[in-house]
Amino acid sequence: MTNPNDPILKSWVPVPPHSDFPIQNLPFGIFRTADTSPRAGVAIGDSIVDLAALAERGFFKDLNLPSSVFNSSTLNDFFALGKKTIRNVRERISQLLRHDNNELSSHESVKSILISQKVATLLLPVRVPNYTDFYSSEEHATNVGSMFRDPKNALLPNWKHLPVGYHGRASSIVVSGTPIRRPRGQVKMGEEPPVFCASHKLDFEVEMAFITCSETPLGHPIHTHETEDHIAGFALFNDWSARDIQQWEYVPLGPFLGKNFGSTLSPWIVTMDALEPFRVEGPSQNPHVLPYLSYDGKKNFDIVMEALIQPEGVEASVVCRTNFKYMYWNVNQQLAHHTVNGCNIQVGDVYASGTISGPSPGSFGSLLELSWNGQKSLHMADGTERTFLHDGDTVTLHAYAERDGVRIGFGACSGKILPSL
Amino acid sequence: MTNPNDPILKSWVPVPPHSDFPIQNLPFGIFRTADTSPRAGVAIGDSIVDLAALAERGFFKDLNLPSSVFNSSTLNDFFALGKKTIRNVRERISQLLRHDNNELSSHESVKSILISQKVATLLLPVRVPNYTDFYSSEEHATNVGSMFRDPKNALLPNWKHLPVGYHGRASSIVVSGTPIRRPRGQVKMGEEPPVFCASHKLDFEVEMAFITCSETPLGHPIHTHETEDHIAGFALFNDWSARDIQQWEYVPLGPFLGKNFGSTLSPWIVTMDALEPFRVEGPSQNPHVLPYLSYDGKKNFDIVMEALIQPEGVEASVVCRTNFKYMYWNVNQQLAHHTVNGCNIQVGDVYASGTISGPSPGSFGSLLELSWNGQKSLHMADGTERTFLHDGDTVTLHAYAERDGVRIGFGACSGKILPSL
Repeated sequence: MTNPNDPILKSWVPVPPHSDFPIQNLPFGIFRTADTSPRAGVAIGDSIVDLAALAERGFFKDLNLPSSVFNSSTLNDFFALGKKTIRNVRERISQLLRHDNNELSSHESVKSILISQKVATLLLPVRVPNYTDFYSSEEHATNVGSMFRDPKNALLPNWKHLPVGYHGRASSIVVSGTPIRRPRGQVKMGEEPPVFCASHKLDFEVEMAFITCSETPLGHPIHTHETEDHIAGFALFNDWSARDIQQWEYVPLGPFLGKNFGSTLSPWIVTMDALEPFRVEGPSQNPHVLPYLSYDGKKNFDIVMEALIQPEGVEASVVCRTNFKYMYWNVNQQLAHHTVNGCNIQVGDVYASGTISGPSPGSFGSLLELSWNGQKSLHMADGTERTFLHDGDTVTLHAYAERDGVRIGFGACSGKILPSL
Repeated sequence: MTNPNDPILKSWVPVPPHSDFPIQNLPFGIFRTADTSPRAGVAIGDSIVDLAALAERGFFKDLNLPSSVFNSSTLNDFFALGKKTIRNVRERISQLLRHDNNELSSHESVKSILISQKVATLLLPVRVPNYTDFYSSEEHATNVGSMFRDPKNALLPNWKHLPVGYHGRASSIVVSGTPIRRPRGQVKMGEEPPVFCASHKLDFEVEMAFITCSETPLGHPIHTHETEDHIAGFALFNDWSARDIQQWEYVPLGPFLGKNFGSTLSPWIVTMDALEPFRVEGPSQNPHVLPYLSYDGKKNFDIVMEALIQPEGVEASVVCRTNFKYMYWNVNQQLAHHTVNGCNIQVGDVYASGTISGPSPGSFGSLLELSWNGQKSLHMADGTERTFLHDGDTVTLHAYAERDGVRIGFGACSGKILPSL
């Protein structure tokens, strides 16, 4: 079998230049059309391959998949088959889509199997049993610590010893395109008693999330050398944050209503396999980590990430350009840490990176940092300025890894701010 | 229809004196036996009424329930029918179990419908999509603040303005009886670098949890006068805590591995309806709360709660006796606060109270407080002492409301500590 990541591979499905979805990507998602119930699909170019239809017509018969595993409103049952099966399915789809393979291209049903993305609605790709948010970018933690504590001791003492994380709200994770209502809540200004009002410091956070494909028993840690067996792939994640609500509520038990009004996940899960060519070394870790957090090999990924703000009726402006490779703690360390106490994982869990900021101001992954808590303004295409988000603004995250003319992209992770009720 | 809470009601099913489960209670749970698949049941005395069997034989035919709603490994689909249906089912069961009703008692299948609890295994009653833990006992928050910060300013500034809470891990919630493995993790002692070891400050927390029975859309707050429509009932909750792991990790984003290795839920969900006779006023709230947290009526419940520690092979000792009525923030305020920013709720969500401590030392709801962070020892029946939990210890929580000879009990919420791996 040819390596499905080989940059010379071409598909008989047209793939526009700079598409996020060449044959080397093949991310999984859930879609429906006017004519079909929700089902699993794979993106290629501007199309979606209907996996339920492929399975019905016997294209996966050598893989012994459970019948109708793709005929589902989530990818959970498919992911539960495990990393090896996900890999086999991706490789089989790669084979079917190659320019020199006509099994599918010449099949009588090809037109009903290959759907235009224009007529499809993309749904949340997984049911999310658990959601954890890490805090793994040194630059982000340093920026926040400098702003709210002491620039000379910006990182808290535990930060370089463990990947700090916290549990988030699974119920309010929505798919890209879902509008986000500006939250109301308690805000404390100065010495006055707290007031109840709409948040006036609404922010985005540029994050990457990994999604798990296995269920482990309680009490069984996952070691760093095993973690990748449990990770299906990655998606973009916008951890919308109401900074004013968060600041008043978060001591001592962490973020709560400042976060759980909504988080946006991109609809396509890019497999870890598709990202293999983009592995890079992570930052060196000093002090040395405890043995359970040590790892071998390249565990970071060189993925450009961007955030754009589009005021209503105006062109979008890029406000942040960062990279997933900046992460101080990698996903192997995150999952090993999360489970070292015996905490169990489930299929479809979302583990987000925390805001990914880079070293330069233009690479900061949140408005909190970009505006330095409201002190600097960002300029929009219509001449208006932003410190935090306005009603009507649409925030879109993009990300892609690119080499040898091949771009492994993530599609859009987008949400528009609605005024508070 | 007679009031199912009437203390004069008797059942034809034998109910031993001081049973947690008289005809006035009728809590819901999930059980299986050697002969049956998991299914819904209601506890009465030492028996369980098999609801799936009742439904199959037409006993609920006037209620128009979906077929096989009780033939399930969780109560979620039943609870999703809503508070009114849950109430109607409980009232119908009350009717069938009354001493003067022979519909069921004289039915030819009565022996297969009424199962002895001895032959049943109780399972986790709900699939838990989301779990939130509050911090709503003033005495507990004051004790913790006194120990770790300043006794003169023990409560943080936000504490009396909002019910502080955080998201916990849903995957590691287990049913009573499941052993808990002592977690390992990072611990920082003095000025030395952190070490990786088994927790030596393993603790329990006496909590009460409410479970929701509806799904709300994102962006729609639940007001305090509506919250009870969304609450099916209550169960006991032990939020096991590794204090040493927690102390090192929890700044600034809250508890994580110090908590998520396991939490224990009791198997019977006592309906809010069964607790109606035990409503009491809560503590007066000063300063006045913001309007969205105001409420009318009695929203606290007079429920005695106890914690017992049983070393291996030794008699159990009561180490804590507290009361749910001490809660500063009531469940209506908790749910109104949780959703005021638009956060949505789902069926089966677990919302735990936080440790419930009372005013006297014997009413403190955790070993952290009872031993004052290890400074005082508790004496066990075999002469050994405890500051925190030992391997082999079994912790059991009990709770009951009692009046007019009727005891609405919760059954046991129990877990035994296994040594770390």
